[in-house]
Amino acid sequence: MSTTAERDRAPKQDRSRATRQRLLEAAVACLAEHGWAGSTVSVVAEHAGVSRGAAQHHFPTREDLFTAAVEYVAEERSTALRELFPGGAADDRRAVVAAIVGLCTGPLFRAALHLWVAASNEDQLRARVTELEARVGRETHRIAVELLGADERRPGVRETVQGFLDMARGLGLANLLTDDTARRDRVVAQWADLLERALA
Amino acid sequence: MSTTAERDRAPKQDRSRATRQRLLEAAVACLAEHGWAGSTVSVVAEHAGVSRGAAQHHFPTREDLFTAAVEYVAEERSTALRELFPGGAADDRRAVVAAIVGLCTGPLFRAALHLWVAASNEDQLRARVTELEARVGRETHRIAVELLGADERRPGVRETVQGFLDMARGLGLANLLTDDTARRDRVVAQWADLLERALA
Repeated sequence: MSTTAERDRAPKQDRSRATRQRLLEAAVACLAEHGWAGSTVSVVAEHAGVSRGAAQHHFPTREDLFTAAVEYVAEERSTALRELFPGGAADDRRAVVAAIVGLCTGPLFRAALHLWVAASNEDQLRARVTELEARVGRETHRIAVELLGADERRPGVRETVQGFLDMARGLGLANLLTDDTARRDRVVAQWADLLERALA
Repeated sequence: MSTTAERDRAPKQDRSRATRQRLLEAAVACLAEHGWAGSTVSVVAEHAGVSRGAAQHHFPTREDLFTAAVEYVAEERSTALRELFPGGAADDRRAVVAAIVGLCTGPLFRAALHLWVAASNEDQLRARVTELEARVGRETHRIAVELLGADERRPGVRETVQGFLDMARGLGLANLLTDDTARRDRVVAQWADLLERALA
């Protein structure tokens, strides 16, 4: 292969990766804003400034696009969360609790919620979303255990962390229709204390 | 008015009330099973064995039917929950915790979830569902405080109960795509202990 061809190939791959990324981010934004019914590959392609043909080259079906999108953004958030506490187990458990709850109140949670609810009525989507949810849930649990410095060998600790993550999702749900920030901040402050005592 | 007319009127009112009730129960079942997109007044009327005309006499719009349905069933559940613990504050907080979480894992929660998510993208529905959610939320909180024997004058107790109710909704969400019963039972057992200590 000629050096010219090699030189051409690298930027082409970069462009392709950038297009894919734009589509994934646009897909999550669309899902959060318009819900499953209003989110088609065409709508996302337009939102991303990508041709419908290019979008379908990357994601042959709507299910491919949206499950990949939720997974991609969940991974980005996990990375961002770990980077917030670069030393691993954080000294300040309150800050970790607030950051994890924060993950459940943004557009990613909203998009994931639309995807879960759509999957509960659509067989094509159901198996994929169930598998995706299990994977993302395990990863979130792993990060929470690590950052909270929770010792899962102690009885009850695993369930304590799980219950806290369920609460974080419930707080995300409470933020769906109204801005629940003020109430949530008070709940998080109280439960950060209870969690601190339970894990100490 | 003749006595015959009076005698005729009472059974007619009873029939009307029974029809209304059948429609409300069918609406929640449809919403839980088919989601908002698949739940029309016609589908519900057929499910309830009621003519479309009779359904529209009771509920002129789809929004009327579904918000009334979720409210009706939520009230039925609240009543059922109070009847489980007729003495008010229960001796067994674990049983109260399990019963409240149980309310979030059945068809009512599933129907409410579909309604919330639909309302987040549909302006006509949004204001009504927001108002309904606030009302049902306050009532659930009131029952939880009463049955848990929680003294809200003590600092942090209000937020402790709120956080527990957020957790219950999060546990409901985790049950949407898969049967989460085994994991949930372990989480509930652990958090019932933590709640017991926090409220003692």
